[in-house]
Parts: sequence; C-alpha cells; structure tokens
Amino acid sequence: MSVRGAIVVTGTELLGGRVSDRNGPWLAARFFELGIDLAHVTIVGDRPDDMLAALEWCSSLGVSLVVTSGGLGPTADDLTASVVGGFAGRAMVLDVALEERIAEILRPMRSRWPHLTEEEIRASNRKQAVVPEGATVLAPVGTAPGLVVPPAEGLVGPTVVVLPGPPRELQALWHAAVETETFARAVAGRTTYEQRMLRLYGLPESQIAQTLRLADERGVDFGRIEVTTCLRRGEIEIVTRFEAGDAAIYEAFVAVVRERHGEELFSEDGSLVDDQVAGMLVEQGFSLAVAESCTGGLLAGRLTERPGSSAYLRGGIVAYSDAVKEELVGVGHDVLVEHGAVSAQTALALAERARERLSADVGVGVTGIAGPGGGSAEKPVGLVFVAASGRDGRRLVRRAQLPGNRAEVRDRTTTLAMHLLRRLLLGESDAAAEGDTAAA
Amino acid sequence: MSVRGAIVVTGTELLGGRVSDRNGPWLAARFFELGIDLAHVTIVGDRPDDMLAALEWCSSLGVSLVVTSGGLGPTADDLTASVVGGFAGRAMVLDVALEERIAEILRPMRSRWPHLTEEEIRASNRKQAVVPEGATVLAPVGTAPGLVVPPAEGLVGPTVVVLPGPPRELQALWHAAVETETFARAVAGRTTYEQRMLRLYGLPESQIAQTLRLADERGVDFGRIEVTTCLRRGEIEIVTRFEAGDAAIYEAFVAVVRERHGEELFSEDGSLVDDQVAGMLVEQGFSLAVAESCTGGLLAGRLTERPGSSAYLRGGIVAYSDAVKEELVGVGHDVLVEHGAVSAQTALALAERARERLSADVGVGVTGIAGPGGGSAEKPVGLVFVAASGRDGRRLVRRAQLPGNRAEVRDRTTTLAMHLLRRLLLGESDAAAEGDTAAA
Repeated sequence: MSVRGAIVVTGTELLGGRVSDRNGPWLAARFFELGIDLAHVTIVGDRPDDMLAALEWCSSLGVSLVVTSGGLGPTADDLTASVVGGFAGRAMVLDVALEERIAEILRPMRSRWPHLTEEEIRASNRKQAVVPEGATVLAPVGTAPGLVVPPAEGLVGPTVVVLPGPPRELQALWHAAVETETFARAVAGRTTYEQRMLRLYGLPESQIAQTLRLADERGVDFGRIEVTTCLRRGEIEIVTRFEAGDAAIYEAFVAVVRERHGEELFSEDGSLVDDQVAGMLVEQGFSLAVAESCTGGLLAGRLTERPGSSAYLRGGIVAYSDAVKEELVGVGHDVLVEHGAVSAQTALALAERARERLSADVGVGVTGIAGPGGGSAEKPVGLVFVAASGRDGRRLVRRAQLPGNRAEVRDRTTTLAMHLLRRLLLGESDAAAEGDTAAA
Repeated sequence: MSVRGAIVVTGTELLGGRVSDRNGPWLAARFFELGIDLAHVTIVGDRPDDMLAALEWCSSLGVSLVVTSGGLGPTADDLTASVVGGFAGRAMVLDVALEERIAEILRPMRSRWPHLTEEEIRASNRKQAVVPEGATVLAPVGTAPGLVVPPAEGLVGPTVVVLPGPPRELQALWHAAVETETFARAVAGRTTYEQRMLRLYGLPESQIAQTLRLADERGVDFGRIEVTTCLRRGEIEIVTRFEAGDAAIYEAFVAVVRERHGEELFSEDGSLVDDQVAGMLVEQGFSLAVAESCTGGLLAGRLTERPGSSAYLRGGIVAYSDAVKEELVGVGHDVLVEHGAVSAQTALALAERARERLSADVGVGVTGIAGPGGGSAEKPVGLVFVAASGRDGRRLVRRAQLPGNRAEVRDRTTTLAMHLLRRLLLGESDAAAEGDTAAA
C-alpha cells in the first residue's frame, strides 16, 4: 500500500532567495528510503496564517504524514508548535518535565546571559515547553523538543512531525520520531522498499535512456522497479527502488547495465569515487601528491574532505603561474614552450614532478582552460588534461572537453582526475610511448 | 500596495532528495527585488493532478502571480503547459510560428538523431509549440518557450508565468517575462522597493539583535524598513528593503550599525570580501602566494574562483604533511618541534616562506585542526591559526576557535584568511614583537 506524506518547511529567510533550504531535500531522501510517497515540499514564511494554510492544504490532499521544519525557537515569531496544536485540535499545555529538561540544558550556558537570573532564563524558554496536549515529545538535542502530533480524537487528518530547523537537531530528532508508536501508526500498512544506487562515469545520459529501452525490450519489468537517473558532478547516478520480492528484476536490470557499460560502471554499492580512491590508497599503502593549475587547489581540497586523508595525501602544489610550474614543480621550460601550459605533456610533467618533489608514490597533474576567457580555436574553454603517474612507471594521461561555466569546468576536472587516479590504482597504464600521442 | 505571488517548482527528481532545487531560491530573490510578497515555494512531482492541486491552492490564497519551473520538454511527462492552460480556462492551440522557430533551433542539431528525418524531429517537438490560446509566448532560449498565461476572460485567478527547468533558460526567460504587458498587469499597483546589503565579520549574530533594539530605541522606524539578517560562511549579512521615500530611515539605521560595529562592518554595498581582496590586489599590483594545511587547497581554490585571478595569484602549496611544510615550504624544523604544526609561529612561517618560495609580494599561511579527530585539551578541534605577510615587513597573525563540523571549519578558515588578507592590504600590521604573543 502506498502512503503519502508532505513536507512543510518554515522560515521567512528562505523566501528571500539568499538562503537555500537544506532540510527539505534531506527529509525527502528519508521519505524515499521509508517508501513514503512524497506529495510535495512547501516552503512558507513564519506567518501563522500561511503555516496553517499549508497544513490544511496537505490535509485536503489526504496525506497521512506531514513533517514540519523550523519555528521552534524561544522567540515570539516561533509559532509552529501552537499552529500545529490548533490544526490537530489539541490544546497547548505546559509540559513540566520538559521545562525542567530545557532548564538543565541551559544551565551550563548561563554565562552567555550574565545580566539574567536563572528564573529569567527559564521564563524566556518556557514557551518551548508548551506543547499540544497528547503529543509525543522528543527530547531536545539543542533546546527545542521535537513533537509527533496525531489528530485529536474524532478528527481526521495527517499526523504532524514537528522538528526544529537547525539541520543537526532536525536530523537527530527525525530518527527519534521514526521510532515512536505515533509515527508507526501514521504510516502503518505501507509497502517497504529496497533502494540501490549505481554510479557511472564517462558516458552521456542519453546512453542510459537507450539502455533502459533495451532492458525493457528484454523483459525487465519497469512497472515493478522504479528507476531514476541524474547527473551529478559529471557522473551518472541510477537509483532504483523496489519491493523486497522484486530483487531478481533489479538484478536483471543491473546485468543489462553491466553488459552495456561495464567500462563506465564504477560503483554498484553507491560508493563514491572519492571513497574508492581513499580506500585503495590506504589498502595499497601509497602516498599521493598533486600539482594542479586550472583547478587551483580544488583537487587537493577534495582529496582532503575526508577525515584521515593525511594518511595518504602528502600535499600539493597549486601551479597557477608558469613560473611556479617551472620553478617549484620542476616542469621543464622546453615542455612549456613546445607544447604549452595546457597540454598532455605539461599534465604528465606536473604529475611526475609533483610525485618526485613531494616524495610520494603517486602523482596527479591537472591543467586546462576553465574560462570564461583564455580559450582559442585550437584550445577552447573547457579543454583540460589530467595525468597520473606511479613510482613504478605506470602512467595515464587523458584529454577532455568539458561543458559548463568556470565553476562547473573546475569541479568536473576534479572528478576526471579522481577517476584517472582510480584507474591507475586499479593497475591500468597507458603504453609509455602511446600515452602522449593518445592524449595529444 | 502589496502584491502576493507564489512559486511552483515541478520535477519528480526533486522529491527524491538527491537533487536540490536551484530555481526556487533564484526566483525568490527576483520576487524580493521586485517587491512581490512571496507566499510560498512548492515543489511537486511531474504529475498533472499534483501540479493542478498546487495551482488551485495558490488561487485559493488569492495570489496575483504564480511562476512555474519545469515540465516543458518534448516528452510525454512534460505537462506543465497543458495543466496551466486548463487551470486558466484556455484551450491548447498549435502556434505555427513557434513551431517553425523550434524547427529552426533544432536544424543545426540534426546530427544528434541520425536515424530520424527532419519531419520526424519536427513532429516529436511539435508538442512544445502547443500553447494556451491567448498566452504571451516568450521565444525559446533552449527549445522550450516560456509562457505568460492570464486567466481566461470571465475567470478570476493568478496570472501564471511558465518557465523551463534548466536554470540558464529559466533565468533568461524570466527577464523576458517581466518585460511583457501581461506580467505588468498582473503585478500592477505594487509598491517598489530599494534593497541594500551590509556585510560584517567578526561578531556574533546576537550582537546584531542588540543593535537592532538600540536603533529602535533611537527612533529608527522598523515598520518602514524591513531588515533581515543571516549568517553565511562565518559572516553576517544584513539585507534591508524599503520604499524609495524611506532612504533616510535606512541611513539612520546604517549610522547606528557603523557606530557600534565600525570595525566589523566591511561592506556597505554588498561586495564580498573576495571582491574587495581581488580589487585591492589588482589595484596595488601585488602578487600572492599561499601555504595551507588544514584547508587543504580550499583557500587557493577560493582565490581562483574569479576569472582573471591569474593576474595576482602565483600559486600555493598544500602543506598537508609536516615533511612538506619543512622541505617544500621551508618552515624551520625547530619551529615545528618547539611550537607544533598548529601554532601562530607555524602559520607565520608558512606565510613568509610561501611568499619567498613563490616570489610573491604577499603570503598567506593557514594551519589548524579541522577534525573530527586530532584535537586535544590544549589544541581542540576547530582551533586555527592564519597569518599574512607582506614583502615590506607588514604581518598579521590571528588565532580563532571555529564552530562546526570538518567542512564548516575548513570553509570558515578560508573566510578568516580572506579577512586577514584584506586587513593586510588595507595597511594593517601587528607590531613585530607583539604578533606572536598576541596570537599565541
């Protein structure tokens, strides 16, 4: 059985266009995992009339569950709890145990408000302990509690899960909400789904559309597995949701993808190329150095996103000017003059010299034209060269013409470099003589 | 007079939680600029019933304008035009001139579909030329037109601006839509506003709340200027919207901010610290080099975001391991041993040696503990040191304890470094002897 839900995000600042909501997409992913069909995400300001109108609209669509985000702070314009109470037909009451709990949370923070007595602090936060009668209260992670509010007896309508706006608090309290009986009753009888993700790199999205048609012709029942594809950072993600009993249909679909895109399918378990590269570097005990030009530090930045990256990344050189390429990295002057800074030869020299200069096992070199200026007919904006070089003589060089604006070209270049590094770590190598010509 | 509007974003992929909507926030900012009061942003899937329900909800709230994004492609599940036509009480008709225009756009792309004849391509895109009768058609930027659809004669309801989903097309067609008479009629009589932005760095948001109270006490009429504040990348943004005649009230407010936060207020025209640093480097003809540890390349990455940054950034060193700090940057072994890699002395040495090694006029050094591991009681996670050093002997060193997770600490460290660089370029310097102790 399909159960429908909706998400209502509150926050006047989200309607000004300068701040983007992060909670809606996060909650949407949780709905998807739980197999709750998401009817809509609505963002409204902190006005009680607008919040109530959004809740009533959800009710008119017959959804079983509404999750709200935000509006639970101690100030007067934080009104979500009382609006939801009214919507659910429940009186607002002071929860004395909750009040005490919030007071305990605030006690160690007293030094922030030196001019207030403890009673004054308690009074200013009492509002957060006033909750709809009969609601399930979720213990605060910050100072705001979460609430699971079913409709009052005799009323028909969705159960409302009320969560605070700060993402860390919202995420922790969501997991607590899902464990409550009130929540379980609201979504009772729904179908549960399995979810799988494939990732591919190096082919256009239109090829996937063809593959889906082919799989359909071969009898894969797309009425029983739900496939969505999207492009992200130059990679293709294929997410599939299905009921546990339909796992064989999913496997038949994956077999077709494997057959058609064996070279491009790099992840069958949803792992990122970043995870795979980090794992292989640790496993093989290799250290890494990078020298990058057009990405200007973003490749090193990406390689250091993960805690523990100091175990393998020795460091890098941002060789933005040719002088730095020559003097600090050690790219030969003749290479730069003969082939240009944006060339397969320079990329390879950056990789090799970075590896040597930083005494690493593997080096990666990146050069290209991120734009918007600096392009020519021969070397247009978006042209990039990446190279990877191993201490053992393995080497890979790739040329690519990337689409998008400056930021997109730079980001996709880091993805290209991660995949080249992955291939080197898997043992691939261009033939020594062939490398340059294949890439040039 | 206040005119209310709403935004309806369509796209099933946006309800899966893996893709975030970018059009809603962009359109929200345009509403704010035009002084259209935004009631809500609703994201629905590509189901006609859900789209229609969202439009009817907007209508029931009495909004004058609805903007939709997405669902204008050539495939069968792109249904926005016909749903909006039905909603507005208008029949769908083939616009022959538009059909010809789309055919012209597609002609140079023919090689993409080698197995189709021109007539077949034209037929498959004919759907995009079927529009509500009487709608104003906006010429396509991609292959999809935009539409401005007022309610049919005799009907009451909002005018709907229908825009395609790809951000580049949406943005171009929005500007075309605003120029139409139909749009002008829908938002006629609205108040127009001025908008200003202040940026501050180096004070907690709670101080701004106090400043707002003080300004109120001094008679600044917050009923006539609308102030919103938000934290972004460690900075505070204060955006104010007011009617042209109330500029003097805004100036009185800014005077209070200047008086209270003269040191922290770095931008009165909305310019970013990045813009200011880039401008000063170009103006002063200075070249720049960085050596960074915990930010792992992100500072160099941020400094190369702007086209033309090669005019001043020579490059950088990602000195992730101590060996690289010593051997490649040239930080003294004794400095690392005596003070540790995370210290004011190491930050300053990174700045000075990077400046020397890369033959730059100014050097910036960054070191810290991004976490989640690696912290101690003495040097906890979030502790960072940044330093800036000029060829002329000017130098600044700062210690900060930053909040947030690994990604946030790294990002805020780049903001701290940008502000330190700004102060150095403005001519500030720590006393030579005082520098180390003040920062230690």
